[in-house]
Amino acid sequence: MSRLRVHSLAISLDGFATGEGLSTEAPFGHAGGRLMEWFFPTRTFVEASGHEAEAQGPGTRGIDDAFAAASWNGIGAEIMGRGKFGPQTGPWQDDSWRGWWGEEPPFHSPVVVLTHHPRPDFAAGETTFLFRDASPRDALALATELADGLDVRLGGGATTIRSFLDEDLVDHLHLVVVPIVLGRGVRIWDGQEGLEGRFSVEATASPSGVVHYLFTR
Amino acid sequence: MSRLRVHSLAISLDGFATGEGLSTEAPFGHAGGRLMEWFFPTRTFVEASGHEAEAQGPGTRGIDDAFAAASWNGIGAEIMGRGKFGPQTGPWQDDSWRGWWGEEPPFHSPVVVLTHHPRPDFAAGETTFLFRDASPRDALALATELADGLDVRLGGGATTIRSFLDEDLVDHLHLVVVPIVLGRGVRIWDGQEGLEGRFSVEATASPSGVVHYLFTR
Ligand SMILES: NC(=O)c1ccc[n+]([C@@H]2O[C@H](COP(=O)([O-])OP(=O)(O)OC[C@H]3O[C@@H](n4cnc5c(N)ncnc54)[C@H](OP(=O)(O)O)[C@@H]3O)[C@@H](O)[C@H]2O)c1
Ligand SMILES: NC(=O)c1ccc[n+]([C@@H]2O[C@H](COP(=O)([O-])OP(=O)(O)OC[C@H]3O[C@@H](n4cnc5c(N)ncnc54)[C@H](OP(=O)(O)O)[C@@H]3O)[C@@H](O)[C@H]2O)c1
Repeated sequence: MSRLRVHSLAISLDGFATGEGLSTEAPFGHAGGRLMEWFFPTRTFVEASGHEAEAQGPGTRGIDDAFAAASWNGIGAEIMGRGKFGPQTGPWQDDSWRGWWGEEPPFHSPVVVLTHHPRPDFAAGETTFLFRDASPRDALALATELADGLDVRLGGGATTIRSFLDEDLVDHLHLVVVPIVLGRGVRIWDGQEGLEGRFSVEATASPSGVVHYLFTR
Repeated sequence: MSRLRVHSLAISLDGFATGEGLSTEAPFGHAGGRLMEWFFPTRTFVEASGHEAEAQGPGTRGIDDAFAAASWNGIGAEIMGRGKFGPQTGPWQDDSWRGWWGEEPPFHSPVVVLTHHPRPDFAAGETTFLFRDASPRDALALATELADGLDVRLGGGATTIRSFLDEDLVDHLHLVVVPIVLGRGVRIWDGQEGLEGRFSVEATASPSGVVHYLFTR
């Protein structure tokens, strides 16, 4: 059975997965890079990005890296909201924006981008971006077919993850709580009262200061 | 220097320190006892309450108990909001409600209850309850004097703690994050953007499933 998995969704203590004021210069708005600081020193990030200099070495191998690495195991397709793909809203003005990831995106698999606004599919390296207006259930059926027996990653953002949680489609939810209070942005918890009843929940504190939460079933 | 300390404020993953629908039967509203389940098995609770039977023994001595016990060290007075004292709102109808704690409350010290509605002070056992309409700063000055060189505990609820955080009067903030999503109630984080900048923050996961956060300065 193919599972739907969320990995490494970083949230603030007050539950925001992104800030306010998104733009091409500020993918997380006023949150800046703070939600991802735990991730940049990991070997998983360093190897994927080639940023050894910034990480001052080959990258860490501790708890944070173990969780970061798990995100790539046995995934055959991703689903994301158009808010993760880029900061644009409304109808696409043109097709020049091709995501944050350059000409060799790290996905190496089909990526279903959910949007109400039509746009042609395109390929970049080994990744194909498919733009679809579909219910969570239909999007998951499509991605599961594309994943060809492997699992499907639900990449975010929080708006999209909530809509899949609302339909009880998520099998594995890994959150990383970063010790900052953002105050505003998009919250993961809205409308999720009682979520813990459908999962077993495990918390692990990392020496880096973040806490990893795993919701599994 | 006398410090102002918050201990063992239990919050849900989504930041609620109490639920909706408070009454004399439901001190935490729809949250029920869930925010306090980590606390009941601790030796600190068992010894204070005599509930050995429920705890099935003398109580635990692990991380949760260490944090629970710290709440009672070197405290000479408490400040609480009238919402912690009882579920009543508006003018006091009569003085028959004397708090949740019976005739020998665990405080054994003066307790300043903040309220806009006048009510006579009273004593129960070694505890004196003083009802005051005062700014956070003035309430702290009064409690500091009553504490006679010891520290002052800020007992909650979240509304009152936020008002003291807004004035930057809190020196030590211990939160216990319980792995439930309450969805509604009174949130600790509202208006606290950037709180982490004034403290160092440390997170410790307990085998019981809760995560202890210490904000210190
Ligand atoms: N913290 C993290 O780890 C993390 C991870 C990923 C992303 N992010 C950040 O989160 C932000 C994006 O998250 P977000 O919550 O604002 O947005 P999002 O979930 O990425 O995208 C939401 C949008 O996608 C479209 N959409 C979603 N479901 C749909 C459906 N079933 N059918 C059709 N369209 C659908 C809608 O846009 P339209 O109606 O306009 O088409 C909707 O407004 C960005 O700042 C990103 O950098 C953070
Ligand atoms: N999770 C935990 O560990 C924990 C700890 C303690 C309490 N609780 C729960 O939290 C709830 C109570 O919290 P809450 O946030 O609703 O209320 P609260 O903070 O206990 O009390 C707020 C009320 O106190 C009065 N007040 C506060 N500051 C004042 C000031 N400076 N001057 C005058 N009056 C002032 C006001 O009432 P008036 O204007 O009506 O007088 C205000 O509405 C209860 O359910 C309690 O059981 C939970």
